[in-house]
Amino acid sequence: MELSQAYSLVQPGLSGVEAAFRNLIESQREFPEMQRMLRQVLVGGKVVRPTLTLLSGSFYNYDLSVLQPMATSTELMHIATLVHDDAIDYADLRRGRATINSIWGLDLAILAGDFLFARAGEMAARTGSIRVVTLFSQTLGIIARGEVKQALASFKLDQTFEQYIERVAAKTAALFTLATESGAILSGAPESSVRILHDYGYNLGIAFQIVDDILDFVGTEKEVGKPVGADLAQGTVTLPAQKLLQRYPKNNPLLAIARKENLAENINKVIEMIRGSSIIDECYTLAEDYCKLACRHLDKLSDKPAREALVTLADYVVKRKK
Amino acid sequence: MELSQAYSLVQPGLSGVEAAFRNLIESQREFPEMQRMLRQVLVGGKVVRPTLTLLSGSFYNYDLSVLQPMATSTELMHIATLVHDDAIDYADLRRGRATINSIWGLDLAILAGDFLFARAGEMAARTGSIRVVTLFSQTLGIIARGEVKQALASFKLDQTFEQYIERVAAKTAALFTLATESGAILSGAPESSVRILHDYGYNLGIAFQIVDDILDFVGTEKEVGKPVGADLAQGTVTLPAQKLLQRYPKNNPLLAIARKENLAENINKVIEMIRGSSIIDECYTLAEDYCKLACRHLDKLSDKPAREALVTLADYVVKRKK
Repeated sequence: MELSQAYSLVQPGLSGVEAAFRNLIESQREFPEMQRMLRQVLVGGKVVRPTLTLLSGSFYNYDLSVLQPMATSTELMHIATLVHDDAIDYADLRRGRATINSIWGLDLAILAGDFLFARAGEMAARTGSIRVVTLFSQTLGIIARGEVKQALASFKLDQTFEQYIERVAAKTAALFTLATESGAILSGAPESSVRILHDYGYNLGIAFQIVDDILDFVGTEKEVGKPVGADLAQGTVTLPAQKLLQRYPKNNPLLAIARKENLAENINKVIEMIRGSSIIDECYTLAEDYCKLACRHLDKLSDKPAREALVTLADYVVKRKK
Repeated sequence: MELSQAYSLVQPGLSGVEAAFRNLIESQREFPEMQRMLRQVLVGGKVVRPTLTLLSGSFYNYDLSVLQPMATSTELMHIATLVHDDAIDYADLRRGRATINSIWGLDLAILAGDFLFARAGEMAARTGSIRVVTLFSQTLGIIARGEVKQALASFKLDQTFEQYIERVAAKTAALFTLATESGAILSGAPESSVRILHDYGYNLGIAFQIVDDILDFVGTEKEVGKPVGADLAQGTVTLPAQKLLQRYPKNNPLLAIARKENLAENINKVIEMIRGSSIIDECYTLAEDYCKLACRHLDKLSDKPAREALVTLADYVVKRKK
């Protein structure tokens, strides 16, 4: 199956998410500045999370009246976390567009992010499912807690592989899991299927973030929509950098980065060293392993196109360039 | 009724809120830095909002198993908004204690606030009521939207009284309303009583914020737990300042403040002028009027001590010094 076919399976639901975004912007018509902020961020996403919710909701009772608000909720939560992340990082660019903090300042980015969290919560509540709403809040807690950990660990090199995976699980896999698990729950799936789709979301999320961390070293600014080496510039030591440090514990430009010396120059050195090594291949292999883990039990789900679409999505995750 | 009697009516519920805070801190025992952040902010509040939830839940089926999580939720949401507000304002002091941003920096304050919002949402979900969870998210949206408006209006003098009340309604009355309305709903109150307690919360919240804005001019740092004149220093033009501008449209130090000239000196001048005028009395009269509005229909509720406690609380709101 082609990726476009996977998406087209849930196109009506995705169009509904787009319509919900337009409605959200339209609801602020008496507050043009808020509309401008919303327009700046409610576009251009890959809508992976809503797609996951809709596909995961396809195996039993596919009820768009609850799946669509939840798909909207997962994307809004994702965008809200990006708005706060960019504020924290003083990032100028996201998805190739100027960030809210770069246009309106840090304070408005914090508040606009809070507003988006609130709307995401409202959408989750529209499902009428307390179980899903509880998962929503728990997920937000996991993400925020993980970001606190990441911020406290910035520019620190003594981090283990386990800590990296723990961070990635909180940062990305938690929301992927919410997306798939909520879709399963809202379609009335039995617990065994909820579990399978939960595990799929979790492992896919880990793979997705590993590839994100790879792209921060090998992508181009045009592809990834933000500067290359952005993680290291924030002091975030991801898997490729961890591997480089293991390989060269001495005479490594990462040591200077940890001391915040000549950041730009040393980041470029690290990028070159990583590109010239087998590290990227190793990271891709790990991401592929997580994708295999993700798909491991999908064959227990009824043989619907949605199942093939989930496999296609997992393939795409390790092949994507942005 | 004395204020202490009003609080003691719901003491078991308030102790439950305290216990929930201790549990939240304890749940992070493997993450000591997070515990330190939580300890820094989960103390010293006036717990007005939880008290409102518990009292509002006293007229019908007083069920602590749902009222207590909701009371905890309202206080957590309140604290989360304070953490973000202080980050935005670069404030050093709150309730006489150092703010998260002053100790850990802006980024951790943003993330810790997000974490508290998440936990507040989880507590709201524990009520099992989708209606209450929906109100919770709507309230967070109203607060964030109001804060966006306030930030965009900072250092602007051309604001009407209506805009002030609109801002105060979003900033404070929305959460007071959530506190009372959710209590009523969770106790199984009929819609007419939900409405009465909704209106009580709304009007009390307006009165509360007017007094807050008064105290920013007439309180002492020791009393209010933060520097006097803090609103003006952030460019927030509250009711006393609005009234001073109406009285002296020319030769007013507020005009220099709007141009950000000699802020400290001009803020002191404004404080002196306001203290030497009848403005404070006028503002107190307005706050009293809102308290009367708040209590107007309470006599339609069954004659329980909780009703007297709500009146006592309204009295306290216009008499408090901190």
